[in-house]
Amino acid sequence: MASAATMGVGVLGLSGLEALVAGSPTRTPGSSQVVTGKRDSLVVHKSEIPVLETPSQLLESRITPLDVLFVRNNQPLADAATLKGVPLKGWKIAWTGKIDKPRSLDAEVLAGMEQVEHEMVLQCCGNGRSLFAGTVQAKGTQWTRGGMGNVRVSGVRLSAVARKLGVRIGAGARFLTAEGRDAPLPGKQDFEHSLPLDEAMEHSLLATRINGQPIPAVHGGPVRLMTPGYYGTMHIKWVTRLRFEGEETDNYNQIPRYRVPRSQLPPGQKIEYTFANSKACWRMKTKCVVLSPEPGAAVAAGRKLSVRGVAFNDGSTRIDSVQLSTDRGQTWKRVSLEIPASRFAWYRWSASVTLGAGKQELWARAVDALGRSQPLDGSIHWNPSGYEWNGVEKIAVTVV
Amino acid sequence: MASAATMGVGVLGLSGLEALVAGSPTRTPGSSQVVTGKRDSLVVHKSEIPVLETPSQLLESRITPLDVLFVRNNQPLADAATLKGVPLKGWKIAWTGKIDKPRSLDAEVLAGMEQVEHEMVLQCCGNGRSLFAGTVQAKGTQWTRGGMGNVRVSGVRLSAVARKLGVRIGAGARFLTAEGRDAPLPGKQDFEHSLPLDEAMEHSLLATRINGQPIPAVHGGPVRLMTPGYYGTMHIKWVTRLRFEGEETDNYNQIPRYRVPRSQLPPGQKIEYTFANSKACWRMKTKCVVLSPEPGAAVAAGRKLSVRGVAFNDGSTRIDSVQLSTDRGQTWKRVSLEIPASRFAWYRWSASVTLGAGKQELWARAVDALGRSQPLDGSIHWNPSGYEWNGVEKIAVTVV
Repeated sequence: MASAATMGVGVLGLSGLEALVAGSPTRTPGSSQVVTGKRDSLVVHKSEIPVLETPSQLLESRITPLDVLFVRNNQPLADAATLKGVPLKGWKIAWTGKIDKPRSLDAEVLAGMEQVEHEMVLQCCGNGRSLFAGTVQAKGTQWTRGGMGNVRVSGVRLSAVARKLGVRIGAGARFLTAEGRDAPLPGKQDFEHSLPLDEAMEHSLLATRINGQPIPAVHGGPVRLMTPGYYGTMHIKWVTRLRFEGEETDNYNQIPRYRVPRSQLPPGQKIEYTFANSKACWRMKTKCVVLSPEPGAAVAAGRKLSVRGVAFNDGSTRIDSVQLSTDRGQTWKRVSLEIPASRFAWYRWSASVTLGAGKQELWARAVDALGRSQPLDGSIHWNPSGYEWNGVEKIAVTVV
Repeated sequence: MASAATMGVGVLGLSGLEALVAGSPTRTPGSSQVVTGKRDSLVVHKSEIPVLETPSQLLESRITPLDVLFVRNNQPLADAATLKGVPLKGWKIAWTGKIDKPRSLDAEVLAGMEQVEHEMVLQCCGNGRSLFAGTVQAKGTQWTRGGMGNVRVSGVRLSAVARKLGVRIGAGARFLTAEGRDAPLPGKQDFEHSLPLDEAMEHSLLATRINGQPIPAVHGGPVRLMTPGYYGTMHIKWVTRLRFEGEETDNYNQIPRYRVPRSQLPPGQKIEYTFANSKACWRMKTKCVVLSPEPGAAVAAGRKLSVRGVAFNDGSTRIDSVQLSTDRGQTWKRVSLEIPASRFAWYRWSASVTLGAGKQELWARAVDALGRSQPLDGSIHWNPSGYEWNGVEKIAVTVV
């Protein structure tokens, strides 16, 4: 955590500065300019504080390479617009709140502890937001399908670190609130998030490596608090403070940001969020995504069409099936799933279909072993900020 | 509420007494003897305190007639083993707890107030329990599919009664706990249940009529607290007291009875329920039931087979589709749904299939508009008492 007073335009990376100066959308820098080390083929949603989306065709591999992995950063941090790592040496993480006494963790200690690796989906809770525009456009970055990736994350269990430090957590602690070194834009509250403490102690990692290398600065290195199965916003980057508290934080980034209503909201309707009528974007909804063909594609008639995609949920149970329909939901056929090694990873799937000439739609739906599936009309989960889209995939193609 | 001291064997109906005296299962009375007015075709699970199940073929009508509606009573009550009504005159309902001052409602007042009618599914949360035996048999009455019915319930909104009485509910009240006039068996705690107060004030009725007539004694008349979308156990019969409280009751019938774990439990595993690791059997899970053919039926080869059933959820959204598979889940076909007038009612559905000779299976699965469906293996929701079964229906038939 850095105070806003110490941060200024100087904290922006060079490419971000150029974008601010340039101003015009026609001069938007490419993704490789926005974040050093990224390929140039990503969609640049924002360049000052980088927000980059991965095109579908770059998501077909089991593991998403870091040079194409999406980026969604919220606040400025000096020298963070790069895939380069950040030294663990000298990095401290404060432990405060309802514990026996405050502690300071020297992050270098993590390197010598038992490492746990999860292959896991990393997904922005705004992924798919643009699809809400089928009813009423939701405010925020208009992500299509590429605000996600599947990565290998390793680090030390939070519970193991607590044991090593001898931390005794008070009976009144029910949430873990985490802060990072990044600082807010002027007039905004500093970014932080709360997690249910029980789940954090069971699953969260103080992660230091991703895809076998130190976590790059742009992705939250040297230490990121990562909880598999949770939306990306809950994986706190550049973590510097862990607060054990009785209540969920009322920080602007926890409420009203990054929340969804508990009940259905008619598209376009306003809501005043309370802790009672809404919940934080924690566990990921069951979902599948079609990666190929892309929406609007022209495909050849009379030939087998390969349909490919991925499916995942919050990891609490397995994906049981992905089903494909070529007749707008009248009949569904199970596709072939590639079973991943980890329950938090995505399942790649593929099918081969033959379509008649003309305008056609491919619909895809995942069902997990708990019977959790996807709404036929994803807008039933409409919310003002367009979080947690998980509608049945409907890909329109033209068969010529 | 009656104290246990005033209750004895004298509270059992005559048929119940006979059963106790007779003892032998070979002399189990028929359902018309167990409850006066019921048809003789129901399955008698228990006769002292009546527990009766409706055979599938009697559930095919839109509205389930009262003479075949299932019964699941928990505690003895004098003269309650009958379809006859109970006078409203003289019936009092106490309002206590976190309200401005205690009240006593004269139930006769309800008759003069605005009546609200819901067509709704009434379902025991143990319905389908016997199907858990595919892994480990759950303890309790081995219901198959007939612990449910679809009825028209009318009464007065709880919120309207509160307004009429001028009740001001305290800010600290979060649950409504209801008790009935029935009394516990010796050594047991009196039956009561808590509901989330917000939902009770929004949806609950002080119901006095069912299918157009006064609620019969056996079904909880003269006044039953009914909350559409909730499991039947939460519809408190013979209601005599409403307590507005800060916490969910820790009564034995709320915890550990009538609870399910929040996380998956391997079949057969014990669990010590806490409010944190479990939840009450409140909202009904999304589900479909095949009513015809019955499991194990022999059906004729080379002819269209009519498959019929019902589907429902907790009424918070519509059932979007019911899908049928004749190839063990490889392909699914949407069936024809009859849209009900009320979101709490069941959807009757039907399909026509042609099966090859030999042993075949019909699988049926509902999906609602929120994307909530049913697990392919219902035992994933295994719990020691076998509540809330909602597995995909799998009906084995022999085609001859």
